[in-house]
Amino acid sequence: MTGLGAAGAENGGRMSDRIEPRTLKGFRDYLPEMMIPRERLLEAARGVYRRYGFAPIDTPALEYAEILLGKGGEESDKIVYRFQDHGGRDVALRFDLTVPFARFAAMHVPKLGVPFKRYAMGPVWRGENTGHGRYREFWQCDFDTIGTTAAASDAEAVLVAHDLMVAAGIGNFRLRVNHRQVLGGLLETMGLAGQAAAVLRAIDKLPKAGADAVAAEMAEKAGATRAQSDAVLALASRTGEPLAVLADLSRELAGSERGLAGVARLREVFEAALAAGLPPERIGLDLSIARGLDYYTGIIFETFLGDLPGIGSVCSGGRYDDLAGLYTRQALPGVGASLGVDRLLAALEELKALGAPGAVAPVLVAQFDPGHLGACLGLARRLHGAGIGAEVFPEARKIGQQLQHAEKRGYKVVALAGPDERARGAWKLKRLADRREVEIHEAAAPAAAAELLAGG
Amino acid sequence: MTGLGAAGAENGGRMSDRIEPRTLKGFRDYLPEMMIPRERLLEAARGVYRRYGFAPIDTPALEYAEILLGKGGEESDKIVYRFQDHGGRDVALRFDLTVPFARFAAMHVPKLGVPFKRYAMGPVWRGENTGHGRYREFWQCDFDTIGTTAAASDAEAVLVAHDLMVAAGIGNFRLRVNHRQVLGGLLETMGLAGQAAAVLRAIDKLPKAGADAVAAEMAEKAGATRAQSDAVLALASRTGEPLAVLADLSRELAGSERGLAGVARLREVFEAALAAGLPPERIGLDLSIARGLDYYTGIIFETFLGDLPGIGSVCSGGRYDDLAGLYTRQALPGVGASLGVDRLLAALEELKALGAPGAVAPVLVAQFDPGHLGACLGLARRLHGAGIGAEVFPEARKIGQQLQHAEKRGYKVVALAGPDERARGAWKLKRLADRREVEIHEAAAPAAAAELLAGG
Repeated sequence: MTGLGAAGAENGGRMSDRIEPRTLKGFRDYLPEMMIPRERLLEAARGVYRRYGFAPIDTPALEYAEILLGKGGEESDKIVYRFQDHGGRDVALRFDLTVPFARFAAMHVPKLGVPFKRYAMGPVWRGENTGHGRYREFWQCDFDTIGTTAAASDAEAVLVAHDLMVAAGIGNFRLRVNHRQVLGGLLETMGLAGQAAAVLRAIDKLPKAGADAVAAEMAEKAGATRAQSDAVLALASRTGEPLAVLADLSRELAGSERGLAGVARLREVFEAALAAGLPPERIGLDLSIARGLDYYTGIIFETFLGDLPGIGSVCSGGRYDDLAGLYTRQALPGVGASLGVDRLLAALEELKALGAPGAVAPVLVAQFDPGHLGACLGLARRLHGAGIGAEVFPEARKIGQQLQHAEKRGYKVVALAGPDERARGAWKLKRLADRREVEIHEAAAPAAAAELLAGG
Repeated sequence: MTGLGAAGAENGGRMSDRIEPRTLKGFRDYLPEMMIPRERLLEAARGVYRRYGFAPIDTPALEYAEILLGKGGEESDKIVYRFQDHGGRDVALRFDLTVPFARFAAMHVPKLGVPFKRYAMGPVWRGENTGHGRYREFWQCDFDTIGTTAAASDAEAVLVAHDLMVAAGIGNFRLRVNHRQVLGGLLETMGLAGQAAAVLRAIDKLPKAGADAVAAEMAEKAGATRAQSDAVLALASRTGEPLAVLADLSRELAGSERGLAGVARLREVFEAALAAGLPPERIGLDLSIARGLDYYTGIIFETFLGDLPGIGSVCSGGRYDDLAGLYTRQALPGVGASLGVDRLLAALEELKALGAPGAVAPVLVAQFDPGHLGACLGLARRLHGAGIGAEVFPEARKIGQQLQHAEKRGYKVVALAGPDERARGAWKLKRLADRREVEIHEAAAPAAAAELLAGG
């Protein structure tokens, strides 16, 4: 409660001026039932990032439009929230965390030094069409290592993506890894090196449009013969044990330096990730993934849920040559990925894996009479000292009502002390699930509550 | 790395189009040195809120301007970021977390039920004059209990504020508590009941303007005689043991029902908070605090740092009669407060209490040669499994260079294995502070690293 004064209070008396409470289209409130899992997911991600040495940063929600959109920017402009501020500045809300990070890197990396590893979490805004679980405000959660072209950072990014899934409680998932230069190498051997962008654009449609449509588009846009498009499609649909496929490819692409470099980098990444303990069933080579067109230059990867493949990739990224060329002459190559927070939460919800609802604090201290309030709050704080959440029912209503409230809201244990218990300096702890009840002295309450909560 | 494509990549080649990287006036980046403490502070606050049973919610950054500003709203309008979205809607960025919570409560509390206890954390935006550590984007961190008028919730709010300070690592602080109706009661006994707002406005200036100026304003704006303003000033400057002062006041305000109710509520809050274990030196009665004018109706409190009183209150709040009258007919009384995240971080910085800088992960695994990468990443993940942060230096540079990097970045322990150690399946762990070195088998690395990190 701070600030300009709540609109509610200022206008409380004017009944006729009541405003219909509603959110904007494409925006939503997070209720505790979804916010608790979101906090849990972000906390899990934070733990993974931190243990790999990524440091948190944050950048403003608002930036100069020119910074976010470049000097052209008409294309992105349609979906970007852009306006003039009080000082007449042309400003916009960030539409991702990458562009602000590029601006940040140009400003601060000279001082911070490289390699620089950061994570960032926060909302971004896009005025897109809504529907199918798409919102105009959604969270991103990115990590990047910049200032090095090393294979170690590529392998680390893949391990981080794996560990994020595990930390999020996802058991059945698979990382699909590719390298931009593998297809580039094949095109080089076929004399189609200049058509990479057109071929990628066509390949990107493979899952939805099918092979014939893709071949037709390659013929039209890239001038590919049927033999050439067949070779591309054969590459894209190749399956098998990654290191064996890569060994084959290093023979097939012998004529292309770029192709061989891509294959060699993939081999380093797979070997290192597997040696570091990543289970082989969680990672595969997928030469069909393209991940956008202009940005990535090295490895690219996506993460799919085995139980919900249709939801799309929940953690995607790759390597790029130059993060911040728009703002600085310093070359900043890097590798990173983004965890799709809202998509993953939607998946966990669909998989009924959001976690059990219930009270935030598991213990409710019932109030017999207001004169006993200090003792009730004291018991709650004693439980807090032992790491046990506990709160006092605010009003000294009938105990039956307080117990009913505790059942309805999902508390696990109710603590109460009537006049008799208080005369003995004792508390009763009642487990709601099975009505098991113990009477203990206050000092023993944390241990007894812990035992009841643990099911003992 | 997702999204619309990074501006940097799209324009990377056009050197002449380079854009100067900069943030808007009043906005700033959080570098790791400040973001790590911010994450720590928010995590500590989350822990306190959760153990008292407050549940997290979130609301959108953008809302209908009408929702945030009311139908009038010209006053607040000057500092609010307001614009038309793509659909021609009149929208604005939230300027606090209270007004969106009022809108949220009107929409969701009928389903969620009362009492409803929530916390919310996030940025808010105000296009105010900058300077003196004031930013146009800053974080708020609020908690509120709505749907009850009980003293228990008032006392709990005070305990939460206390525990927030302790969790933030602040030792020397003091809560100052008041109740709106104490002064109101005094004015009632003097026949000035209708002048409460004017008197409060004057009293609010006491710390800066002094007693004479306040008396003059009370005479001019509230028609107070010198005897009356003296009585008000005597009340405001009253000190002493809270329960003794309250006992005196209950005699002095005998003629005012409102005054007595305020005194009685304060007594309940002090008695309960002290009985619940709040140290007496951390809480005092301060009858001079006013906290804004229109909103609060019951207890009000502020929190000052003993070592930095000039920075102002770092956690303030109080009780209000009606949260959401602008949006709903349902009366929602409540009590809550806001933790001043940025102000508290600035204070911790000034007190040199932000915590030691250093690497995010304390262990750096040095790379002897690229063929060893998988083993290095495997060691890092083994340490992760024991809760120890560890990362691999991305490039197989000379070991001396990697050690130098480790010193400069503040790592505590370096792990390395040359050909000899690898032949033995061993790792060397070197503590940088005192060059202590141990050689262990990989399976023993977590225990050995933990011992070195603990200073053993």
